[in-house]
Amino acid sequence: MIFRQLFDTESSTYTYLIGDPLSRQAVLIDPVLEQVERDLRRVSELGLKLTHVLDTHVHADHVTASGVLRERTGCEVVGGDGGAPCANRHVKHGDTLRVGALSFQVLATPGHTDDSVSYLLGDRVFTGDALLVRSNGRTDFQNGNAGQLHDSITRVLFALPDDTLVFPGHDYQGHTATSIAEEKQHNPRLAGKSREDFIQVMENLRLPNPKKIHLAVPANRECGRLPSTPPSP
Amino acid sequence: MIFRQLFDTESSTYTYLIGDPLSRQAVLIDPVLEQVERDLRRVSELGLKLTHVLDTHVHADHVTASGVLRERTGCEVVGGDGGAPCANRHVKHGDTLRVGALSFQVLATPGHTDDSVSYLLGDRVFTGDALLVRSNGRTDFQNGNAGQLHDSITRVLFALPDDTLVFPGHDYQGHTATSIAEEKQHNPRLAGKSREDFIQVMENLRLPNPKKIHLAVPANRECGRLPSTPPSP
Repeated sequence: MIFRQLFDTESSTYTYLIGDPLSRQAVLIDPVLEQVERDLRRVSELGLKLTHVLDTHVHADHVTASGVLRERTGCEVVGGDGGAPCANRHVKHGDTLRVGALSFQVLATPGHTDDSVSYLLGDRVFTGDALLVRSNGRTDFQNGNAGQLHDSITRVLFALPDDTLVFPGHDYQGHTATSIAEEKQHNPRLAGKSREDFIQVMENLRLPNPKKIHLAVPANRECGRLPSTPPSP
Repeated sequence: MIFRQLFDTESSTYTYLIGDPLSRQAVLIDPVLEQVERDLRRVSELGLKLTHVLDTHVHADHVTASGVLRERTGCEVVGGDGGAPCANRHVKHGDTLRVGALSFQVLATPGHTDDSVSYLLGDRVFTGDALLVRSNGRTDFQNGNAGQLHDSITRVLFALPDDTLVFPGHDYQGHTATSIAEEKQHNPRLAGKSREDFIQVMENLRLPNPKKIHLAVPANRECGRLPSTPPSP
């Protein structure tokens, strides 16, 4: 497997380029609009053909590159059930997505947003904003639900083997990956805490909205097409 | 192997935590002073014992955490031949460093600085500032030498198998890793360029000095001990 983890400094977003060394087919998970040229250059330099873009959810903090990448490469855009209407395919829990010899298993992990999915590939899981390194995505917009996120993390993701490597959608402290075992034992919102504790913490975070939310959510529902007149906040 | 790549946003430095799953012995490569607490927490949470800090060279752009980590854990500090006098051990080309079942092979890769070494561990090489993703370290201070760096990259690092994964000491564009094949083919200063071309480019970069150089170099020669009176620039 060809694997490259890429970072967008402005939004602290991780993008993953994953390719099948035999067929040369490749996917980008959660690509960022401002990084299209960088990411396409990496695809080309590695001798890969981009066949799929996978968004883990409709993002509120950055604009997806999925639409531009589809126009430029003819790739298919894949999103979670109930997610961006512009996607070519909506996947649900239990679906398998084949990319050459690679087989991505779809896990529904709602709670950060209602369309959130994770993608399991062998011993690696790409969790979007459901599970982050020692943290998790917020649950206060886009039909987020703290109880549902707790269930997604503890019943779906924590059911994976302990040594599964977790590759998150964001990080803000310089971590690039974690493991299921580490998060079970050391995630401060989950380890030794009840579902009720988790809900209480999440409902009392009182974070400001992401700066780009009023632009990003409608744009991402259209695969990154920015509105000609930005909606008023 | 337990492997975690960590990033320091201020200096854009990558630190690597690598542990042997059986003996639980671990190393940190190029730890940053400001990240000591984060890195020690990761070591502890992974159930590891820090036995070695490996610095790839005496850094000019950040202060090493090696001395503080030695005080806190009793680990051994390892540097390149001719590097920081404070190190417990100075390694040279061909040396092997054993950490539990892990075996790091030392490659002398001078040119960015005269004490620069890379560490090869199986199919991964930690190149410090000798080879970066589509770039390389500068050669205009600390006895840097562009011709010598060209030789280190093309004769030592490019002699490794093409699919060797290269983990750099820094990145400024959101890349986390590359491969020997990629850099042979796509590094703009090396692919299709002669040694003379490379020297000319490096001698005409005219970059400003790193902001911390007058503090960092003397501090790093003492494993990160900051002078009580900072030297005047």
